[in-house]
Amino acid sequence: MQPAGYQLITLTTDFGLDDPYVGIMKGVILSIQIDCRIVDITHGIPPQDILAGAIALKSSFRFFPKGTIHVVVVDPGVGSYRRPLLVQTEDYFFIGPDNGILSPALEQERELRIYHLIQDRFFLKPLSLTFHGRDIFAPIAGWLSKGTPPSEFGPRIEDLLTLKLPLPKRTGQRILGTILQIDKFGNLITNLTASDFPEPVRGYTLRIAGHEIRQHLRSYIEGKPKEPFTIFGGSGCLEISVNRGSAASLLRVVALEEFELELLE
Amino acid sequence: MQPAGYQLITLTTDFGLDDPYVGIMKGVILSIQIDCRIVDITHGIPPQDILAGAIALKSSFRFFPKGTIHVVVVDPGVGSYRRPLLVQTEDYFFIGPDNGILSPALEQERELRIYHLIQDRFFLKPLSLTFHGRDIFAPIAGWLSKGTPPSEFGPRIEDLLTLKLPLPKRTGQRILGTILQIDKFGNLITNLTASDFPEPVRGYTLRIAGHEIRQHLRSYIEGKPKEPFTIFGGSGCLEISVNRGSAASLLRVVALEEFELELLE
Amino acid sequence: MQPAGYQLITLTTDFGLDDPYVGIMKGVILSIQIDCRIVDITHGIPPQDILAGAIALKSSFRFFPKGTIHVVVVDPGVGSYRRPLLVQTEDYFFIGPDNGILSPALEQERELRIYHLIQDRFFLKPLSLTFHGRDIFAPIAGWLSKGTPPSEFGPRIEDLLTLKLPLPKRTGQRILGTILQIDKFGNLITNLTASDFPEPVRGYTLRIAGHEIRQHLRSYIEGKPKEPFTIFGGSGCLEISVNRGSAASLLRVVALEEFELELLE
Repeated sequence: MQPAGYQLITLTTDFGLDDPYVGIMKGVILSIQIDCRIVDITHGIPPQDILAGAIALKSSFRFFPKGTIHVVVVDPGVGSYRRPLLVQTEDYFFIGPDNGILSPALEQERELRIYHLIQDRFFLKPLSLTFHGRDIFAPIAGWLSKGTPPSEFGPRIEDLLTLKLPLPKRTGQRILGTILQIDKFGNLITNLTASDFPEPVRGYTLRIAGHEIRQHLRSYIEGKPKEPFTIFGGSGCLEISVNRGSAASLLRVVALEEFELELLE
Repeated sequence: MQPAGYQLITLTTDFGLDDPYVGIMKGVILSIQIDCRIVDITHGIPPQDILAGAIALKSSFRFFPKGTIHVVVVDPGVGSYRRPLLVQTEDYFFIGPDNGILSPALEQERELRIYHLIQDRFFLKPLSLTFHGRDIFAPIAGWLSKGTPPSEFGPRIEDLLTLKLPLPKRTGQRILGTILQIDKFGNLITNLTASDFPEPVRGYTLRIAGHEIRQHLRSYIEGKPKEPFTIFGGSGCLEISVNRGSAASLLRVVALEEFELELLE
Repeated sequence: MQPAGYQLITLTTDFGLDDPYVGIMKGVILSIQIDCRIVDITHGIPPQDILAGAIALKSSFRFFPKGTIHVVVVDPGVGSYRRPLLVQTEDYFFIGPDNGILSPALEQERELRIYHLIQDRFFLKPLSLTFHGRDIFAPIAGWLSKGTPPSEFGPRIEDLLTLKLPLPKRTGQRILGTILQIDKFGNLITNLTASDFPEPVRGYTLRIAGHEIRQHLRSYIEGKPKEPFTIFGGSGCLEISVNRGSAASLLRVVALEEFELELLE
């Protein structure tokens, strides 16, 4: 854990930056604990897209110092019976709704302690049924960073809702994969990792949206204009990319599109 | 007031985040007072939209700690005779142009002291006629957070330009209201609040853009797909929303659209 | 140099804010040096647009306190032989790829010391070939802000790749200029400055995209609706603007468009 005053809080939401919602959450946190540091992971998650939020969190939380409090608010069930949670792991804290958004990140963590946030003396009053980012998750993050023990926020529970990211399916030399995410550069980030391939990578044919890709490169700049290739991206996942262009535009692919990869004998 | 070193400054502008203007303002502030904390409320105010800036400020300033310095720069009159202002209230400081943008927030505040910022020894030199966010408002915020008394920045004045947000008009059981704001989720935020309704809320018919809405819900998730309803949103205002959809797209409504709400007997 | 704990780091990238890349870079920096301050200049540089990145850096770096570390990552050559650099000047540090992006800013600086970042003990492992913002530039910024001397990161070199911004060409009374940048307001920012004109500015005719502009104003608000004019903007450059409108939309001009300015006798 960081020394008091250095506690780091990250925010991941689907609130966007054009409305004051993110600023309001920061105001609430800083009103409780002026000494914390708040870092945005992203607020550009598409509205209510729990899967995209889960992927953003999973791909980034480990780059932050131990003790960081990760707050994630993509919350289509706000105001319903979905539970607000705090999860403490060996290295981090996670705060967010119990809708599966935390689970892909938590799969990589150890010593999970899950708390159901019910002690409403820590909430903003009057508690709205529409903005728990402000009324529950931000204040809990503030009090936690100020040193309040997790057990004061509510009872420990044993389960949380699990969101399964689409897994690649392998049959013989064929792998059926999924595009998990498309980034600003138009890179298509798949659910395949280096562990899905025998080392060294031999030839393969990848079929997606009517195109065939046979070229695997190590850096973007080796690619020729408008010729898509595969590459292991920064996240460790296989990506489909185009040098100085957008693979998403060139191939007309959207998130969650499936593809087939056939390994050569 | 916060202890020195913890002084918080918020920024609300129409500068967007693609140009370096916001970064430059932060550089200017930090060059004067490295110890302050700067939080963005939003920089996504539509260009020169004073009303939208006023609403963003009004709906967020109170969530920040007492002593926070709120800097607001939506400034179509930059370089003209419109006055640059600092307003000190019981709880906050506000810095911005005298074009009405501060006034909806200030209506909620007490003990207003208004200062006309004319002491140009605090300004950046040469003073431009096009970027007072950088040359006047940012440095004043920096010096103020460093402890310079407001009276050193210029004389007290007694008035400022007032911007009236559209108010609901009630005639018998009919209320004519206005959509003040549309957020990223497509929620239509109206100028009606709970005080416009007898408690408990009885039935009503809301007519907007050729549609009739009769359903009032307490949380988004109770809504059926593509069925708009009204709800009291996080700001305390009545909103028109669609569960997991955009009311703005569904109803084809833009900001400042009017609607009629007829209360049932 | 700032005292330890106050070290300021700015980030300028083409990563956008919808993906977690910027958040990840901040996590890496803060994992090394929790005490630094990170300020975004912009992450809205168009993908791989080195020129736009160079202009954003050049127009903003001097507004930050001396000792600030400016990290710039627009890096189409990531993973190739382009060198990662640290440049120390009399007043600032600059970290980024050797692709010309630093050079327009550095032209204004003195006492340049250029270091080739090769000491991979400071890099994140495993070093990717696709995300040096995370694996090289962020950690070097972190270690530098923590006090590691620049010479530990790699050997001094004497040259770096130079990017020449388009310069105005003058023939008699005619000046051929270029639109360097278009901001959110639709202002067309040219490569002409006050030094290109005899003082006081006399009449001229500016021809761009089939339009003629003869009006030079001192502040935006003097302009009539839909009548474009020239003005010296906040950056000191001549801009083509429209009061409460977008010159870019009105004149249908994009970045790098050329124009002719004819000075009157």
